[in-house]
Amino acid sequence: MTALRFNILHRCSESAARVGRVETLHGGFDTPAFMPVGTKATIKGLTPDHIRGTGSQAILNNAYHLMLRPGDDVIARLGGVHRFMRWDGPIVTDSGGYQAFSMSDINRIDEDGVTFASVVDGATVHLGPERSMEVQNNLGADIIMAFDDCPPSPEAWEGETSKCQNVKMSKGGRAKPQAAVGDYLARVRLANERTVKWLARCVKAHRRPDEQALFGIVQGGTDEQLRRESLEAVCNVELPGYAIGGVAVGEGTEMIRKVVELTAPLLPESKPRYLMGVGYEHDIVAAVRAGVDMFDCVLPTRNGRNGNVFTRGGGLRLRNAEFREDDRVIEADCDCLACGGLMSRAYLRHLLMSDEMLGPILASIHNIRHFQRLLLDIRAAIRENGWPRFFERWAAARTREGAC
Amino acid sequence: MTALRFNILHRCSESAARVGRVETLHGGFDTPAFMPVGTKATIKGLTPDHIRGTGSQAILNNAYHLMLRPGDDVIARLGGVHRFMRWDGPIVTDSGGYQAFSMSDINRIDEDGVTFASVVDGATVHLGPERSMEVQNNLGADIIMAFDDCPPSPEAWEGETSKCQNVKMSKGGRAKPQAAVGDYLARVRLANERTVKWLARCVKAHRRPDEQALFGIVQGGTDEQLRRESLEAVCNVELPGYAIGGVAVGEGTEMIRKVVELTAPLLPESKPRYLMGVGYEHDIVAAVRAGVDMFDCVLPTRNGRNGNVFTRGGGLRLRNAEFREDDRVIEADCDCLACGGLMSRAYLRHLLMSDEMLGPILASIHNIRHFQRLLLDIRAAIRENGWPRFFERWAAARTREGAC
Repeated sequence: MTALRFNILHRCSESAARVGRVETLHGGFDTPAFMPVGTKATIKGLTPDHIRGTGSQAILNNAYHLMLRPGDDVIARLGGVHRFMRWDGPIVTDSGGYQAFSMSDINRIDEDGVTFASVVDGATVHLGPERSMEVQNNLGADIIMAFDDCPPSPEAWEGETSKCQNVKMSKGGRAKPQAAVGDYLARVRLANERTVKWLARCVKAHRRPDEQALFGIVQGGTDEQLRRESLEAVCNVELPGYAIGGVAVGEGTEMIRKVVELTAPLLPESKPRYLMGVGYEHDIVAAVRAGVDMFDCVLPTRNGRNGNVFTRGGGLRLRNAEFREDDRVIEADCDCLACGGLMSRAYLRHLLMSDEMLGPILASIHNIRHFQRLLLDIRAAIRENGWPRFFERWAAARTREGAC
Repeated sequence: MTALRFNILHRCSESAARVGRVETLHGGFDTPAFMPVGTKATIKGLTPDHIRGTGSQAILNNAYHLMLRPGDDVIARLGGVHRFMRWDGPIVTDSGGYQAFSMSDINRIDEDGVTFASVVDGATVHLGPERSMEVQNNLGADIIMAFDDCPPSPEAWEGETSKCQNVKMSKGGRAKPQAAVGDYLARVRLANERTVKWLARCVKAHRRPDEQALFGIVQGGTDEQLRRESLEAVCNVELPGYAIGGVAVGEGTEMIRKVVELTAPLLPESKPRYLMGVGYEHDIVAAVRAGVDMFDCVLPTRNGRNGNVFTRGGGLRLRNAEFREDDRVIEADCDCLACGGLMSRAYLRHLLMSDEMLGPILASIHNIRHFQRLLLDIRAAIRENGWPRFFERWAAARTREGAC
């Protein structure tokens, strides 16, 4: 049995984009694919039938949250995360490292991983390559991610090196930015080294390689040479897929694009390429055209919960007074539960203004469907070499103007 | 065109219960019927397909909340509340009076109705029989309720008479209970008089009698003679249906039962009888056997949001630690989205403990389905004279032990 198969079905004639299909033991998904994020084994407010209704074929869960609550051991005893949340399609879990680094007020990083205070109960928790594999083996997702060291962007770089010396410090107490380029490069170089060492430990610790496909993650920050070095080291390990990590961690759109366009084409041609945590429509389209196959992002759900919805022409803030008596659906030809169900912007605004759960739920459903429709059109554009028509149709994919 | 037709299809051979069917311009519902409450034009967290999936045929909306936000005029301009919330089945609205009396910190009641501070923005709002009809005509529900004066129960009776003298006072500033029986009876007598006077004004103000069926409401508190007097006066007005009001306002189960068993059989035989705001399974069964046809209650949704779910054998508090690894569904043979979808108590507990919306949503769906299954079994028991088997199956309908 193979945990993952990937077939490329069509190649774009004018870019590095490709249409393919990933198959896992829990079914397959078409690529390029967008995966909505179900952090705590739930896409906030959506029942499994609603998730399916958005056309989502695969979803992402966060190992960090689930290891803390209800506990990966609990989920393992209950039959794994598919059975736990009753999502029978493909699931990806991340390694937990990114959240452990970024979400805890107090953490400490060393050669064995990261030690942090649990957001649930403040308990001291250690997460390293072996434990991350144990957690992800317990959860049982179809695609699992290597435990990597993800350095901040140059912009977010704030005296981070102090952490490497095992000095405990709170987020609030960090020193002001001292973005010396040399320091930043040293931090990225250290991350590269750790990432590849930890990858070897992940491969060794992974107990279910026949059921769960382990993806390696390329780091290297925004530096071309360090990206190349990380890519070479990570791809030197034979794995079912590879991800571009360390992107969308605070750097701008242009830099995201530059890094992706450098990295994606160098990843193994026959393996799925996954750009983690990205992004807006224009980010996704640029990455697809650079050869990326998989995406996850919290944008549709997080923005939806705030009442901000996507349309092909740009975003709408549904709480705005202008929508008070707007009888139109969010987007005229959208087939999501809200638009297809003929729910008006006025009704959605009423729900949002009244703090009614149904507002965030319907906005999230619409937004996820928006991204799935984007990916449907992207796949069609690749197959039919239809990019001019695609860009005509998706104004939001051309520019950042429409970002909601 | 008649706004409402009611056919009795079967009469119980051993009680006053009957099985029937109400038809409105937005379709019909089987009686005895349970209507979940969608206060602000939404059953909290449920999409219309989920509401239908619970087997609910009719729902209740609250005029009070909708007149304040988004405004009944806004809903009228958007085509009425069915179109607004995209529920195309029968809808009932209450008059708004009950909330105006009970929910506002400052209110003033006189012969023209009640003046209160809006919970939305503190504005001074007046609600009386004419305005209530205007609001309900604007909303456009299939069954609308007369604006009545609902006195508190003897237990909740706290110097309420001071309000009748047009003295503004805040809830917090009320005098201590002075439950003089004479005062209470005087208050109920005043409510009876107002209720019938206001009913005449409602009938006169109702602009859409061919589309919306106006129900009268019987008051009379817990006093037998005053109940009979109110009933006679209200039923003297020819209307498509009648409700028993002033029940479940603080008095105990035994008193609810006594009042219902006195009032229901005296209501016109050929019209639907509606017991407002009741209740637990045992309350509903007792009322059905006394001849009541319609029920609404917030219990399934309010308890569901708190993680308390109903089963035929009694309630479960899903947040309890005992459910941490409980792989069973809430109720083995339940066909709701949660149980039918094989979602475990452990998963539901995880969602509730993690403050994830999906927990309250699934618990609400289960609870509404629980009540609809209760009503399905009640209708079967009436048709087949199957009460012994019914009570065997529904332990929660026999006693109060199971109340969750």
